[in-house]
Amino acid sequence: MRLCISAALQNPGSLFRAELALQMADAFGLLARQSEAIACAVEYFHIASLLLDDLPSMDDSLERRGHICLHLLFGENSAILTALSLITRAYSLLGECIAQTPAHFQQLAHHWIERCLGSRGILNGQARDLAFQRESHRSRYAEKTALQKTASLIVLPMLLPAILAGKGKQSLLELRRLAICWGLLYQGIDDLADTAAATTASTGKTRGRDLALGRPNVALQLGPDATYQYLSRLATISGTCIARLNAMHPSLAFLQTFHAQLEQRRNRLQA
Amino acid sequence: MRLCISAALQNPGSLFRAELALQMADAFGLLARQSEAIACAVEYFHIASLLLDDLPSMDDSLERRGHICLHLLFGENSAILTALSLITRAYSLLGECIAQTPAHFQQLAHHWIERCLGSRGILNGQARDLAFQRESHRSRYAEKTALQKTASLIVLPMLLPAILAGKGKQSLLELRRLAICWGLLYQGIDDLADTAAATTASTGKTRGRDLALGRPNVALQLGPDATYQYLSRLATISGTCIARLNAMHPSLAFLQTFHAQLEQRRNRLQA
Repeated sequence: MRLCISAALQNPGSLFRAELALQMADAFGLLARQSEAIACAVEYFHIASLLLDDLPSMDDSLERRGHICLHLLFGENSAILTALSLITRAYSLLGECIAQTPAHFQQLAHHWIERCLGSRGILNGQARDLAFQRESHRSRYAEKTALQKTASLIVLPMLLPAILAGKGKQSLLELRRLAICWGLLYQGIDDLADTAAATTASTGKTRGRDLALGRPNVALQLGPDATYQYLSRLATISGTCIARLNAMHPSLAFLQTFHAQLEQRRNRLQA
Repeated sequence: MRLCISAALQNPGSLFRAELALQMADAFGLLARQSEAIACAVEYFHIASLLLDDLPSMDDSLERRGHICLHLLFGENSAILTALSLITRAYSLLGECIAQTPAHFQQLAHHWIERCLGSRGILNGQARDLAFQRESHRSRYAEKTALQKTASLIVLPMLLPAILAGKGKQSLLELRRLAICWGLLYQGIDDLADTAAATTASTGKTRGRDLALGRPNVALQLGPDATYQYLSRLATISGTCIARLNAMHPSLAFLQTFHAQLEQRRNRLQA
């Protein structure tokens, strides 16, 4: 199991979520060890979700982040135990970090951790992913799935530092709105890349899986043109959210660089 | 996923761990909602571990608690997502319950939660279970595996209420000692039952699996006679621990009834 855990950690992705957590926590004045705890925890939850998503009974993937999936190298059982080790460590990091704040912030923090990670968050997103039937899908099924499956792990690193720093309802609402837009953008770009020809920009994972496996995919549902419009609309709303957040909290100016990252990915795909 | 979650909860086992958590918490004067939160959380962790243990890549079991395993009815992916939902809910219950206590108790609580559930606890126990090779096993391999795999989820319901009630080192040490003895007894009895002829007392799960799968099993390692002696020694040590604990905390008199339950299971097997 140790080899599998270290392999899972040796091949980081974009670290978008961890970096976001780190900068949010710094901007809201959390202690360095709290910022690091939240960043590591969020990244561990993310890696765990990828390990499990790739299993034969889920997406049956061969590649992840440009490498062979870990369950193919170490066995499904080791991949599952590794995911659980990361989840356990992540909860411990969060628990110790949250323990340093007043009790009513803690309650709210635990509420949102479960909301993002549990059966109303990423787990239900994955269940929707698996339960999808292309023939009988309802409108916006793919978008609602992305909301739970992908946006959840962007909501968490944005909300948690704000909650622990005692920020008010309006800030939390606006941060969540931006996180949801970014989550949908992130997944929409991913969906478009999955449907694109294999010769375009490499995504580091098996391509064309959504059509082959019958998974919800915004680009398959809307077609390329409407997807570009959808992504552009999300980018505009994100921009408005960032402007409002910057007006409330000047220390959040860094949000623009994350937005630029997503815009770069979006433009690369549209080019 | 919802159907699978409700099926997982509709077929409780002995509720040994939940009942233990409840009575420990009551004895140490925790609030009713704290007692219930710890009891539910411990049982959810336990059910999740069983769901995952039964998967084809783990023990490949057919039956659990006298019913067909859930991954056979709902699919492996639903069983995995159900296990994770229970784990997420359990962490949330514990988090909210722990938030009501002083920060230094909280740190200790999170330390022991990870110690019992993580890669030094039940997860490593399961990894040892899978990595076992009968030909090359070291002495006491089965016992050390049981310590992490089984005792961990008895240590947690005994230590957590004591930690949250602010009990001292000596009490925690003695409680952990008793929990370990009980855990080893519990697993030893299970191991013996697994090796016994299929016509004896029903265990509600597939029999003879340890030999067939090459899993560590105290009774297979020691033989029946030495196993009876080993279990009897553990029962004696447990009795001594209980006596010491009762002298320190008269409210723990109920421990004797749990001990009697285990003794009944042990005697039934030896009869």
